[in-house]
Amino acid sequence: QGTRDHPPAQAALRERLLSAVVSCFKRHGAAAIDTPVLELRETLMGKYGEDTKLIYELQDQGGELLALRYDLTVPFARYLAMNKVTNMKRYHVAKVYRRDNPATTRGRYREFYQCDFDIAGQFDPMIPDAECLKIVHEILSDLQLGDFVIKVNDRRILNGVFAVCGVPESKFVPACSTVDKLDKMPWEEVRSEMVGEKGLSPEAADRIGDYVQLHGGLDLIERLLQDPKLSQNKLAKEGLGDMKLLFEYLTLFGITGKISFDLSLARGLDYYTGVIFEAVLLQQEKEHVEEPVSVGSVAGGGRYDGLVGMFDPKGRKVPCVGVSIGIERIFSILEQRLEASGEKLRTTETQVLVATPQKHLLAARLKLISELWDAGIKAEMLYKKDPKLLKQLRYCEDTGIPLAAIVGEQELADGVVKLRDVATREEVRM
Amino acid sequence: QGTRDHPPAQAALRERLLSAVVSCFKRHGAAAIDTPVLELRETLMGKYGEDTKLIYELQDQGGELLALRYDLTVPFARYLAMNKVTNMKRYHVAKVYRRDNPATTRGRYREFYQCDFDIAGQFDPMIPDAECLKIVHEILSDLQLGDFVIKVNDRRILNGVFAVCGVPESKFVPACSTVDKLDKMPWEEVRSEMVGEKGLSPEAADRIGDYVQLHGGLDLIERLLQDPKLSQNKLAKEGLGDMKLLFEYLTLFGITGKISFDLSLARGLDYYTGVIFEAVLLQQEKEHVEEPVSVGSVAGGGRYDGLVGMFDPKGRKVPCVGVSIGIERIFSILEQRLEASGEKLRTTETQVLVATPQKHLLAARLKLISELWDAGIKAEMLYKKDPKLLKQLRYCEDTGIPLAAIVGEQELADGVVKLRDVATREEVRM
Repeated sequence: QGTRDHPPAQAALRERLLSAVVSCFKRHGAAAIDTPVLELRETLMGKYGEDTKLIYELQDQGGELLALRYDLTVPFARYLAMNKVTNMKRYHVAKVYRRDNPATTRGRYREFYQCDFDIAGQFDPMIPDAECLKIVHEILSDLQLGDFVIKVNDRRILNGVFAVCGVPESKFVPACSTVDKLDKMPWEEVRSEMVGEKGLSPEAADRIGDYVQLHGGLDLIERLLQDPKLSQNKLAKEGLGDMKLLFEYLTLFGITGKISFDLSLARGLDYYTGVIFEAVLLQQEKEHVEEPVSVGSVAGGGRYDGLVGMFDPKGRKVPCVGVSIGIERIFSILEQRLEASGEKLRTTETQVLVATPQKHLLAARLKLISELWDAGIKAEMLYKKDPKLLKQLRYCEDTGIPLAAIVGEQELADGVVKLRDVATREEVRM
Repeated sequence: QGTRDHPPAQAALRERLLSAVVSCFKRHGAAAIDTPVLELRETLMGKYGEDTKLIYELQDQGGELLALRYDLTVPFARYLAMNKVTNMKRYHVAKVYRRDNPATTRGRYREFYQCDFDIAGQFDPMIPDAECLKIVHEILSDLQLGDFVIKVNDRRILNGVFAVCGVPESKFVPACSTVDKLDKMPWEEVRSEMVGEKGLSPEAADRIGDYVQLHGGLDLIERLLQDPKLSQNKLAKEGLGDMKLLFEYLTLFGITGKISFDLSLARGLDYYTGVIFEAVLLQQEKEHVEEPVSVGSVAGGGRYDGLVGMFDPKGRKVPCVGVSIGIERIFSILEQRLEASGEKLRTTETQVLVATPQKHLLAARLKLISELWDAGIKAEMLYKKDPKLLKQLRYCEDTGIPLAAIVGEQELADGVVKLRDVATREEVRM
């Protein structure tokens, strides 16, 4: 349940999609690493907030207690700490596992690919953070998925907001995970969850509401930097200052048109400590567009400066920022689009079919195809002793093989091969 | 335990190795599929003989009872049956899981990659089987791993041998798994296991010994076809006839020099029904070579005509033959060789580092690198506001970046970039 086989047509589309993402990561100088699908259970505990219950555990069959990885970020942090790496730019494309309620039509599965790019190391503020946003922008533009917006916020700003609204520090995390639901439910419901389930005072909730419904650009950052309450809060001031710097760099990258500083963005995971972001596709209405509707997140990430330290015996921190591309949702979109277009994706790369027009020529086919393979040419033949020529040519048409190399009795006698262009039916002897 | 992280240098070597294997599979017209790492437990049970105990099971957290896949063959057969596919040539490169005693120095892990190529469908005898052997030959030659031999046998011949030696049919499977140990222990030990643990009569064991110590080529096949006892056994006769045909095709492929018909080859898995094979590397002794010593199996496979039927509600069979490349052992060899050579593999593909020679030029770097990325050029910069030029050039040397694009105050004023060849120190303004 919640997993799927990929038949050849899907596997080919996925390969195309993954290779577009990976070439962007390589364009930005990232190296690949690989980590096991299995992690020690204790490595994964206490990293995913309310979602820890979604971790798949392995049966205790003796030996270590294991679980399947939930994402690629925690294994990356564990890798850095274990190997005492303090400086690295890596990508990782691999499957992760969540015992979630699958919603397969929207591309939500229990086993799915993640494509992660992360920068670890002590650097000047916001330079790697800006590059992560540039990467999201490049990938979503390359894939031509339609209009999108990248929402940006900062955990320090959110925590500052909670502080100046009178939320006690012990309730920052629950308040944050409630704010996170603003993209799925209206403010009124979020407010009642804050007051009801999370035990915030109605006044605090109302004050939070005034802030988290704001979104904008550099102007909003400037306004909040002047905000009499927020500007007095150390965390918020730091966050807003960095946000301003980030926008400066994004302006140099020429991508601020797709960036929205959005105070409702919270992100569910515990480990974020600074900038957070999430890219959503905007639905293109065929009629008059009132307000573009979000069709869901296709990329997300942020800064997590404390995670590596949790795996180091001496607690040594390695600041990190990274992005994860939501490849499954993108895959669903591309798949639907391909289906609608009626285009048929080739699932093999075969260049030539070796064929014979008469019986008793299997040996000639085997000799020729062996020569072609040894010369690095992608070649197939039918696995029948005496297939009909028509059947062999139809196989080319069905699978998109452009050429047929035909050896008949005459060709054998003359020491030639007849090369046929399957589409045009042109033939040359060579 | 028994798993490992792959740091960038290993990941790069692995990518190179996998891409050599995959291009061979594509050269033979195979399409990719992907299946989940998780399978239902019941799917995996009863397929792996004594090794069933090595399957990793997931904890029962409600819902289906799951396990991690043990190989890629059983999931492929399950895929064919579930989707009613009766004809397919596919490859699959993915990780599999075995709770084995790891021997990591010899490339044996609990999580490891398999690279499988299989041909499913009802075809004329031995044509797809011969192609599988051709593939092993191509890959091992391409990778230049040194001398190798591909041992070939047939389960029908083995079962015929057991029958004519007086082994009751109920003991074919245990007898077979004991013969399989002949590559690791001498005949005397195998014989005593047959008689002691498996309960064969000493006479039967001795008769088996006379057969399973034979190996050769077409001459041996001909001799056994004349063998007064074996030639009376239907199974053995079928197997030997097909083996003769196989050698005919392999002669046309020009690869019989590396093929040995070896009656001691048994292969551990339950599901094989016909041809079986295994490739081993031969150790190159520096001194006078008495007899080349095997350093272990690097590829194996065979025909399994009954497996798909086990997953079909009506038991409909789909004949299959396939090969699995033992990528981990090959990886260990290549890794040791790379280490010995002192060659350093680049872990990134960055073409140019964007650098500045003076302070306060971060904006110029960000603008230029953004242009390069947008033009599809692989570019990096240091994440410091004001890095020293020497440090930037050293980064190029350390990571193998061939070019530096330098923008200083003069270049900015002139509207040019200074492109420097890191190795030769030549510079051009452009």
